[in-house]
Amino acid sequence: MAVALNPAAQLTPINGIRLSAAAAAIRYQNRTDLALIEIARGAKVAAVFTRNAFCAAPVTVARRHLIRRTPQYLLVNAGNANAGMGEMGVEDALSCCQALAGHTGCSAEEVLPFSTGVIGQRLSVDKIIDALPTAVVRLDTNAWLIAAAAMMTTDTVAKGASRKVIIDGKPIAITGIAKGAGMIRPDMATMLAFIATDVNMSQTLLKDLLYGAVEESFNRITVDGDTSTNDACVLIATGKSNVSIKSNSGEAHARFQSVLTEVMIDLAQAIVRDGEGATKFITVDVRGAASSEEARQTAFTVAHSPLVKTAFFASDPNWGRILAAVGRAGIERLAIDRIEIFLDEVCVARRGAVAGDYTEAASRRAMTKPEITIGIDLHRGAHSFHVWCSDLSYEYVHINAAYQN
Amino acid sequence: MAVALNPAAQLTPINGIRLSAAAAAIRYQNRTDLALIEIARGAKVAAVFTRNAFCAAPVTVARRHLIRRTPQYLLVNAGNANAGMGEMGVEDALSCCQALAGHTGCSAEEVLPFSTGVIGQRLSVDKIIDALPTAVVRLDTNAWLIAAAAMMTTDTVAKGASRKVIIDGKPIAITGIAKGAGMIRPDMATMLAFIATDVNMSQTLLKDLLYGAVEESFNRITVDGDTSTNDACVLIATGKSNVSIKSNSGEAHARFQSVLTEVMIDLAQAIVRDGEGATKFITVDVRGAASSEEARQTAFTVAHSPLVKTAFFASDPNWGRILAAVGRAGIERLAIDRIEIFLDEVCVARRGAVAGDYTEAASRRAMTKPEITIGIDLHRGAHSFHVWCSDLSYEYVHINAAYQN
Repeated sequence: MAVALNPAAQLTPINGIRLSAAAAAIRYQNRTDLALIEIARGAKVAAVFTRNAFCAAPVTVARRHLIRRTPQYLLVNAGNANAGMGEMGVEDALSCCQALAGHTGCSAEEVLPFSTGVIGQRLSVDKIIDALPTAVVRLDTNAWLIAAAAMMTTDTVAKGASRKVIIDGKPIAITGIAKGAGMIRPDMATMLAFIATDVNMSQTLLKDLLYGAVEESFNRITVDGDTSTNDACVLIATGKSNVSIKSNSGEAHARFQSVLTEVMIDLAQAIVRDGEGATKFITVDVRGAASSEEARQTAFTVAHSPLVKTAFFASDPNWGRILAAVGRAGIERLAIDRIEIFLDEVCVARRGAVAGDYTEAASRRAMTKPEITIGIDLHRGAHSFHVWCSDLSYEYVHINAAYQN
Repeated sequence: MAVALNPAAQLTPINGIRLSAAAAAIRYQNRTDLALIEIARGAKVAAVFTRNAFCAAPVTVARRHLIRRTPQYLLVNAGNANAGMGEMGVEDALSCCQALAGHTGCSAEEVLPFSTGVIGQRLSVDKIIDALPTAVVRLDTNAWLIAAAAMMTTDTVAKGASRKVIIDGKPIAITGIAKGAGMIRPDMATMLAFIATDVNMSQTLLKDLLYGAVEESFNRITVDGDTSTNDACVLIATGKSNVSIKSNSGEAHARFQSVLTEVMIDLAQAIVRDGEGATKFITVDVRGAASSEEARQTAFTVAHSPLVKTAFFASDPNWGRILAAVGRAGIERLAIDRIEIFLDEVCVARRGAVAGDYTEAASRRAMTKPEITIGIDLHRGAHSFHVWCSDLSYEYVHINAAYQN
């Protein structure tokens, strides 16, 4: 069902990163469900985690480990979130880290655990431990897509993105993989994403670049407004190329920042395109707002409205539902009679009412396309914000009504 | 599909109120779609309207008229919301008021117009005007349910509630009717509701009683989180009984307030039970909160979560989704490891993890019932709040994907 999303083409290897996958049969049979990412010593690693107060055990453990050591391994399992299991969940996540440390000679604190899947069932630690030797022996610089496939749950496509660019006259690369299809909305990074580059930079710079790019990418997507307990986004700089970024200004920094943001937008959009039951990829683009917070609030209110989302599923140019969602976005002293609404380039509402030149035929043509932009001009100022979302289909209900069974 | 909701039984007439219905064929054929309510002179009338900044033309007109005069007639049409039509919509609503004034001898300002239905299509004023003589001639004290049926859109059942009680040793009555099945959430009164009593009281007292009862009823329901452009709730005191309520304290006031709240809770719950595609009637009951705002915020976050709602549709005791929704409710310094979650009397999560005595069989038994309470104890304080909501089914998507077509 993914909207205009093909399986990622070959992804560029990153010097200093090896990956692998193994089949642990945690929940899914006859497929891989364990991904391993190895980070060469000397790399810098930064991460952001879910803001949900109910965070899963692996998030607790990963946060703790990341403060103390630079990770050597990221261990990801699909099918079980190891969430809602209390102290036992933390111990189970630690057991996996310890087992991997035993196989590889690192310390348990140099392993970050990640889990995605059903909440509230005990993690099959033994199955994971049994699969670790296979995962370790398969580690390969060319296995980005193989690792991406092992992280999938309700995803229908393995998601990845790569860029090769020249900085300071020398080639560098950025490659990332991600998973996520439901429980998607911002407030960080409601999915798993692992991105690496061979550029050399300080930990501080890496963190800043990650935070900046997350704001422009993963914090702008929503499938269903629910945030997950397990979300994480990790950025690794292996430093194995000849390129160093030394300050947070200048051309090299700007160039890298822009390409990193591109990769992360690709991954974030891939998650929405593969959103549970998605049949449309919708950009909600709010402009003319008095502040960017006001634009943001309006965009997310529209993107979360079940009535707007079902109308898009039906290719129904029901601009009244869009206007009604804008009306309840909590904007103070909103003059509804100044608002314009566009479906792509078709103006459907002007001054808070149906546009004089509106024809249902033209707007229905825009609505039937798989990718569409809702443009909303509040005519209150110069600020703007955009988010990406999917529609609400029978399939969304089907997937989520059936998921645990 | 309505959950445990029968068509209202005979409703008690209120001395001073006559009602009727007519078929204007505005959108629906072969049924009534125009309701008229006549209020005897001397009555007091109070109303609350949608807080959506995008309010429909009839809301604008009704607010304006209500400030100037005590209404003699409430005119309600179903099938067209007269929303998003700019100044033309206001003129159309006024034309209907003027036509009714011509037939009845009141002034146009003594008519309040109400509309419910599709947004963004022009109201068929001529059809309404043509049906007015029939509506006027049919006015009858016994036609509460007939008027309720004429207001229905995606409703499957005409909604009404009545109470007869003794106050100061004398009998009084309260009767109300309502419509609404989608675009339901609080911030006033996301539906149409008309309630009348024969008690005598001041305008100020009537307003206070209305606001108080709305907080306990219509502001606690949600079907899909969307608020409508047209919502209104009107309370009429005809003063035709021998009972007067003279102050906002004392036994008579308390008794009346409690019975009025009962009637309005009945109507509000009927709207949720008849929620679009509803198969479950869910009470989200949050206790142990540090403030009532915190309890309210938690209750609505859970009630709006698509993942929680699809799990209830599937009778799937997926308490992890409930815990994840609590976790993103925006409560500061929330200690997830103190939270308890109950499905009816079955404790499914304790200290933020699966309860030790949890069995899927017991919680699944609770989940398959058509009415269920999600109990959430935050263990932070003594405040509580509850809301009523429905689940999210294929039928919801079907109704809203097909509505305009």
